[in-house]
Amino acid sequence: MPDSHQTTPRDHGGGLDAAMARFGGTRADWLDLSTGINPVPYPVGAVSDTAWNALPDRDAQNGLLDAARQFWNVPDGAGIIAAHGASALIARMPALAAPGIVDIPTPTYNEHAAAFTAQGWQLGETAPSARVLVHPNNPTGHLWSQSDLTAPLTIVDESFCDVTPDHSLIHHADQTGRVVLKSFGKFWGLAGLRLGFAIARPDTIQRLTDLTGPWAVSGPALEIGTRALTDHDWANATRNRLADDTRRLDALMAGKGAALVGGTTLFRLYEVEDAQAWQDKLARAHVWSRIFPYSKTFLRLGLPAPDRWDQLEAAL
Amino acid sequence: MPDSHQTTPRDHGGGLDAAMARFGGTRADWLDLSTGINPVPYPVGAVSDTAWNALPDRDAQNGLLDAARQFWNVPDGAGIIAAHGASALIARMPALAAPGIVDIPTPTYNEHAAAFTAQGWQLGETAPSARVLVHPNNPTGHLWSQSDLTAPLTIVDESFCDVTPDHSLIHHADQTGRVVLKSFGKFWGLAGLRLGFAIARPDTIQRLTDLTGPWAVSGPALEIGTRALTDHDWANATRNRLADDTRRLDALMAGKGAALVGGTTLFRLYEVEDAQAWQDKLARAHVWSRIFPYSKTFLRLGLPAPDRWDQLEAAL
Repeated sequence: MPDSHQTTPRDHGGGLDAAMARFGGTRADWLDLSTGINPVPYPVGAVSDTAWNALPDRDAQNGLLDAARQFWNVPDGAGIIAAHGASALIARMPALAAPGIVDIPTPTYNEHAAAFTAQGWQLGETAPSARVLVHPNNPTGHLWSQSDLTAPLTIVDESFCDVTPDHSLIHHADQTGRVVLKSFGKFWGLAGLRLGFAIARPDTIQRLTDLTGPWAVSGPALEIGTRALTDHDWANATRNRLADDTRRLDALMAGKGAALVGGTTLFRLYEVEDAQAWQDKLARAHVWSRIFPYSKTFLRLGLPAPDRWDQLEAAL
Repeated sequence: MPDSHQTTPRDHGGGLDAAMARFGGTRADWLDLSTGINPVPYPVGAVSDTAWNALPDRDAQNGLLDAARQFWNVPDGAGIIAAHGASALIARMPALAAPGIVDIPTPTYNEHAAAFTAQGWQLGETAPSARVLVHPNNPTGHLWSQSDLTAPLTIVDESFCDVTPDHSLIHHADQTGRVVLKSFGKFWGLAGLRLGFAIARPDTIQRLTDLTGPWAVSGPALEIGTRALTDHDWANATRNRLADDTRRLDALMAGKGAALVGGTTLFRLYEVEDAQAWQDKLARAHVWSRIFPYSKTFLRLGLPAPDRWDQLEAAL
């Protein structure tokens, strides 16, 4: 069989397959801290037969959107679309304006630049017609403010903002040329479910709907997403737990000489003398971490699940 | 709350919500024959925690693609991409060439024209640079042949072809400018799962991958899809059952004066004197059918589930 169907992903850290090939161990042996996904996911619960079998219906879609509106305090003047993961919406952002110059302050999540360049845009900082701000930024945790929303089309990717809802820029989403993206995979820990949202003025949402096509969200994602977005108690408790676990991780890493330089309560960015050496050391104990092609000293760690701290402590 | 987030779907038949509002009854009361979805779906089975929680990994994606290659006899010279439903791929087809004239022989599934016109194409039959053939066609069941693959970019939508695999045009997918689409929702009856495929030359598949972004298939869809596509026994038994049920439906309808004019073993197209009157009559007994804005005499019916034939017979 030819290799032509093999996926050729951009650099998403990941690479656990390659790590297993080099350092051994089964998938269950590995503690994967290379992402910023909450390790205590929202409980999936029961999924109805209809969710799997039937084309997702309009009532269910609107129920999800209503729950999302309320959860994120979407301004009345903005519309909202749900799609198959924030990634699916990131891929559509370049079609919202004629190709030109897009400013994507780095370092940041690399999928935005990949999407824009694949659709005829050029990266640059001078008089950009579009700007992408990851908020809080991945991996630095940097927070942007209203004064940063400068380009005619400014996209605010709030994939990691649900741990710090007070910092959200969602209240700008009813203004022309502003798009706010939300992800379901990280905070709710259900990355495999694929669910994300874009919030913007109704004409922009209509354009995204036309470009996305019908049934952009699976039946199970509609059911589970609606339950999760109406469960504000779970969200509050999760924010507290993530904050506690982050303090624990910072203390652990500080004791080993790693200096905190940024992050959110879903991932932490540490400065170390030799990030590659740290990654290798952790990998020998089957803990997978994230390092970056543009930095020799950045090491990013997600949070271990409650029953996996021992493995991390032993690895350090 | 403003209405700006309401989805504004194109005409997909559906309309069961509106029918319920007009004719009463709960969703469970209604027998929905307005689609061509197999009413005896592939059994979903267990879904692992990892499928929900983790970003779908490359091994799992390649496992699905390998199963799909084998199931559909994909030629060695073609690549394959899986995405969130055939709809997601239909929406990307217009980006495979510069906007021009696209020929979409009618009547047919209307989402193709919607996608092309939303992305700057014009519908026409003269010297088209693209052509879309739904194969077999929905709703007529018409089958196309090699001599119909005439435009520089020709898309063959085989969403309903799994009941007649001998007629597939998949062996042309390794030729320049040919794209074959496959849907998981109809034959396997899991429309809510959202899974579809495109098969074409590797450079076209790479372009679609760039336009789609990463993790285009959910974790549950990877697991369930891989199981289903390797279950050739289920596929064979299902083809036989659908053929039997189709004969039963045709006999029933012939007895009521409806003339078969086309279809597949997933849906049947009948000619009746007054399609609107038939739809209303069936709807009063909570059976929902499909009629078409362009025809006063076409009535399309899907197949009832095994335990719902009584309701259809009583409604007729």
